[in-house]
Amino acid sequence: MLIKSEFDIQFHLPFRTPMLAMLHVHPSLEAQLITPERLKVEHAGPAEENEGTTELAVEEYVDRFGNRCSRFVAPPGAIRLTGSSVVNASDTPDLQGFGLPLTPIEELPADVLQFLLPSRYCEVDRLGSIAHDLFGRLSPGWEQAAAIRDWVHERVMFNYNAARPTKTAMDVFTERVGVCRDFQHLAVTLSRCMNIPARYVTGYLGDIRVPYGGPGDFSAWYQVWLGGRWWDMDGRHNEPRLGRILMATGRDAADVAITTSFAVANLTHFYVESNEIDEHGKAVPLPPSQATIQGSVQQHA
Amino acid sequence: MLIKSEFDIQFHLPFRTPMLAMLHVHPSLEAQLITPERLKVEHAGPAEENEGTTELAVEEYVDRFGNRCSRFVAPPGAIRLTGSSVVNASDTPDLQGFGLPLTPIEELPADVLQFLLPSRYCEVDRLGSIAHDLFGRLSPGWEQAAAIRDWVHERVMFNYNAARPTKTAMDVFTERVGVCRDFQHLAVTLSRCMNIPARYVTGYLGDIRVPYGGPGDFSAWYQVWLGGRWWDMDGRHNEPRLGRILMATGRDAADVAITTSFAVANLTHFYVESNEIDEHGKAVPLPPSQATIQGSVQQHA
Amino acid sequence: MLIKSEFDIQFHLPFRTPMLAMLHVHPSLEAQLITPERLKVEHAGPAEENEGTTELAVEEYVDRFGNRCSRFVAPPGAIRLTGSSVVNASDTPDLQGFGLPLTPIEELPADVLQFLLPSRYCEVDRLGSIAHDLFGRLSPGWEQAAAIRDWVHERVMFNYNAARPTKTAMDVFTERVGVCRDFQHLAVTLSRCMNIPARYVTGYLGDIRVPYGGPGDFSAWYQVWLGGRWWDMDGRHNEPRLGRILMATGRDAADVAITTSFAVANLTHFYVESNEIDEHGKAVPLPPSQATIQGSVQQHA
Amino acid sequence: MLIKSEFDIQFHLPFRTPMLAMLHVHPSLEAQLITPERLKVEHAGPAEENEGTTELAVEEYVDRFGNRCSRFVAPPGAIRLTGSSVVNASDTPDLQGFGLPLTPIEELPADVLQFLLPSRYCEVDRLGSIAHDLFGRLSPGWEQAAAIRDWVHERVMFNYNAARPTKTAMDVFTERVGVCRDFQHLAVTLSRCMNIPARYVTGYLGDIRVPYGGPGDFSAWYQVWLGGRWWDMDGRHNEPRLGRILMATGRDAADVAITTSFAVANLTHFYVESNEIDEHGKAVPLPPSQATIQGSVQQHA
Repeated sequence: MLIKSEFDIQFHLPFRTPMLAMLHVHPSLEAQLITPERLKVEHAGPAEENEGTTELAVEEYVDRFGNRCSRFVAPPGAIRLTGSSVVNASDTPDLQGFGLPLTPIEELPADVLQFLLPSRYCEVDRLGSIAHDLFGRLSPGWEQAAAIRDWVHERVMFNYNAARPTKTAMDVFTERVGVCRDFQHLAVTLSRCMNIPARYVTGYLGDIRVPYGGPGDFSAWYQVWLGGRWWDMDGRHNEPRLGRILMATGRDAADVAITTSFAVANLTHFYVESNEIDEHGKAVPLPPSQATIQGSVQQHA
Repeated sequence: MLIKSEFDIQFHLPFRTPMLAMLHVHPSLEAQLITPERLKVEHAGPAEENEGTTELAVEEYVDRFGNRCSRFVAPPGAIRLTGSSVVNASDTPDLQGFGLPLTPIEELPADVLQFLLPSRYCEVDRLGSIAHDLFGRLSPGWEQAAAIRDWVHERVMFNYNAARPTKTAMDVFTERVGVCRDFQHLAVTLSRCMNIPARYVTGYLGDIRVPYGGPGDFSAWYQVWLGGRWWDMDGRHNEPRLGRILMATGRDAADVAITTSFAVANLTHFYVESNEIDEHGKAVPLPPSQATIQGSVQQHA
Repeated sequence: MLIKSEFDIQFHLPFRTPMLAMLHVHPSLEAQLITPERLKVEHAGPAEENEGTTELAVEEYVDRFGNRCSRFVAPPGAIRLTGSSVVNASDTPDLQGFGLPLTPIEELPADVLQFLLPSRYCEVDRLGSIAHDLFGRLSPGWEQAAAIRDWVHERVMFNYNAARPTKTAMDVFTERVGVCRDFQHLAVTLSRCMNIPARYVTGYLGDIRVPYGGPGDFSAWYQVWLGGRWWDMDGRHNEPRLGRILMATGRDAADVAITTSFAVANLTHFYVESNEIDEHGKAVPLPPSQATIQGSVQQHA
Repeated sequence: MLIKSEFDIQFHLPFRTPMLAMLHVHPSLEAQLITPERLKVEHAGPAEENEGTTELAVEEYVDRFGNRCSRFVAPPGAIRLTGSSVVNASDTPDLQGFGLPLTPIEELPADVLQFLLPSRYCEVDRLGSIAHDLFGRLSPGWEQAAAIRDWVHERVMFNYNAARPTKTAMDVFTERVGVCRDFQHLAVTLSRCMNIPARYVTGYLGDIRVPYGGPGDFSAWYQVWLGGRWWDMDGRHNEPRLGRILMATGRDAADVAITTSFAVANLTHFYVESNEIDEHGKAVPLPPSQATIQGSVQQHA
């Protein structure tokens, strides 16, 4: 299945601003990229100066987690970050590791051990007893991992207005409301508490063969390490999905911000889309939405 | 100057326990090591079984921060971790980067950027306004970095009983009391808030050419990146010192725990020493303690 | 000056719901009330039952802070709380206690002492050192109290979306953004840290002789005890105002919620107004708004 | 049964210090007091001035919770607070309200409602979902109240070193370790979350007809409101006890500090005892301690 992802993000910058971006697909998808992919950063100076648009030099580097990152310095004015990719993605929904046992600590690859530790938004050191209370009687491994994902999905409500940059897994556990990243932070933390290595993921998750779900955005999910590999998990959209396009992985959202600005940057435009296309590049139509039916059900609730 | 460091740490383990340890001197000191260094882990089974002591197999690996780490699995019973090293250390006290300007973000090596981010015990995202209130009027770079270190040193009191594993920089900022790691977490966080890359360090800091300061322990300090290199800073012992022996660096204490046990591990013995020795291996005597004088001064405070 | 205040608040209740309300003007304003005031609570059952509207029995009581409170039980369905009052308010803007010294603890009335203690949203026990760092060099009493109010006003930004029910003074201090109650919680806490008794206030603060400021709402401010009396302070609207109509005082917002529902209560309508009226009951027109001028200034900022 | 309680608490004060104390038995015990009770505060100036001891004037007042409080101002130097009481206490261990249903909110006395609200150390607004997860399936009322007390008793470990003044119920819930007040704060909070009014209590709880339990101290427990009265509950000593002597009740520890000093006060001596006496005033001997037996059991754990 072909997945075309694209973005157009614009900021107004009052000052000269160094920026970082993690807007590439993940190096592990290199072989599946149908078209070469790049990040284009354009700058337009103050309107009165009428200088037109210039493309800014962008330097690329790979961070310690293996993510492809970009950095550049933008002069004051308007900047625009654009890019697109076509990835030959798997035709199979998220794989399931039913029945996998917990990997003993001593068999974990050295590089995976760090995903057991506490991190900024994942207070493993505070949620340990809570996790054991909730999931300690389940079979270690996939059963626990899936139960954690399901618990988070059922107990936390989605609400865009409940987002805030400092919100941690503990906050999500007590407030039970949040956005994408909040669901994943709580699930990641509870997983690590049960000695299941878990890492935070950003990427594209378009409405692929599911009904239209609203304007596009980047998505967050997470991965757990069991049976010698990472498995995609999603505390918010708790169903096997098609078309996840991995961009970056890290301990938590602190490691994989889409953009980081080292001065004031006012977002002025934000467009992200990720869609299935056919071999001619045309968008594959989505199945009909079931919003009406769901609406009437809710009215009686 | 020759610095001999050694440790003898013992645990009683009720269960089979996978463990991690960061008990080597840092790879960057390799060339200064006078004697080869290794971690020895011995195990004694339950006394009644009378099996004597066996040495456990220890696997070594280098983590993403470049630290030399060890891992092993210990059967139930008593374990003992020992090791020693002699390092040919610099004869110069901690170097000072007086007057160094702040390195512009765009000139920071890619690998240094991560030390601007928030981490588990360093809530850069919560202390930003506070740091700017306190240090925003100072000259960016060394002046700010030194002012942060001094402020932490003056405002936070040392108290062993005020330690707890979940204590963060924000907790230290409000409680104003803590142990070694707490001083450094607060200073690291405030430094990052001012765009000064800062990382947490563990190592040996014995009483080298200073009066006896009490039983030995591992120490924590931190480093800031200015002028193209890392500089040692110490929010607790705020004076240039001799004989710091680097063991590991990370974002904060979560990355560089001396030992990590994945089951109950009861500490039964703890000995750490780090001393200057002469070319014959003899300890160099310390200067006389000034404890009496200080004591009488305190009486009038 | 006559101030007419009125409200119309409606909820949909899925279940039978006990509720508390603090919707009366404060008993201390009794003598200034021009018209008797009461809280009317009406209930309409499910539409299909066509039962019309019934008025619910409301019980009144005075809480330990001396506030006039109401309690009632509402059956499932729609409820509507309405009320209005006309108060003969002072023609003088908020009085200022310039130069008042701090009242020594031993001279505080016993009943005022509680307003030095920490409370749910006012962590006096965590902000003590911070307050002394910021305000410790100022003259104790009014000068400190005013400096605290000004500091909060200048450093915290208003943003409706930054509200959340669990937000504390410490959160406001770090996030520097919030709504009315958040400004006051921080100012109350910092005042108490300097031994200035401070209590949280809810009431009406309409656009009285100031330009139109947007749709009406209840307001929060606070009071400090100096020179033998309480003085109104307002960390958000930091200018002497006319027409504050006191409703309730307490340690913090936990004590003086406008309504408290002991089951799900979905707000469906919210109208609050407080205006100056003339002797014929007509609204006194407001001075012209300066929004346009301010807007153009902001454009160049 | 006669219970004699006494205390001798001494501080060194560098400065003139206003102080509050809650060192009386509760007014509700007035009729059971065998001997009149008073708080004596003595002051000794600096040794070199040789002025001997003077008794300080102490003012008494009753706070909003109905507790008998004392206030005084102490000059610099040493102060000593002493007092004793003999109370004719009930011969029955803590009464149990087995089977009592939850009191509907609308039937709670107005004065009891405040004990449903969040307070400084009891974040009812953060623990609501957690409490419902844990106790929501139990029968509302005594069954829930007892289950909460038992849960806290079983899941939290006692450790004197884990005390800190800012520790809240949420901290106890995550850290699972604390002192007396921490157990009660968590239980109070969880009870309120289930709409069971709960208040914090300080008092004497000596080793009365139980084996010697270590040096005396004031104790904290809590009370829940069910069936029209308050019932003693104790999350730490989770067994019906004899000889609880009530001193003060409040929302949490912030309301009922034994002493509050408005300047530095260094504790130099602390003696508290509460014992059963016979009609001649002689201490009734305790049953034999089972420490030895317990010790040997622990050795095999």
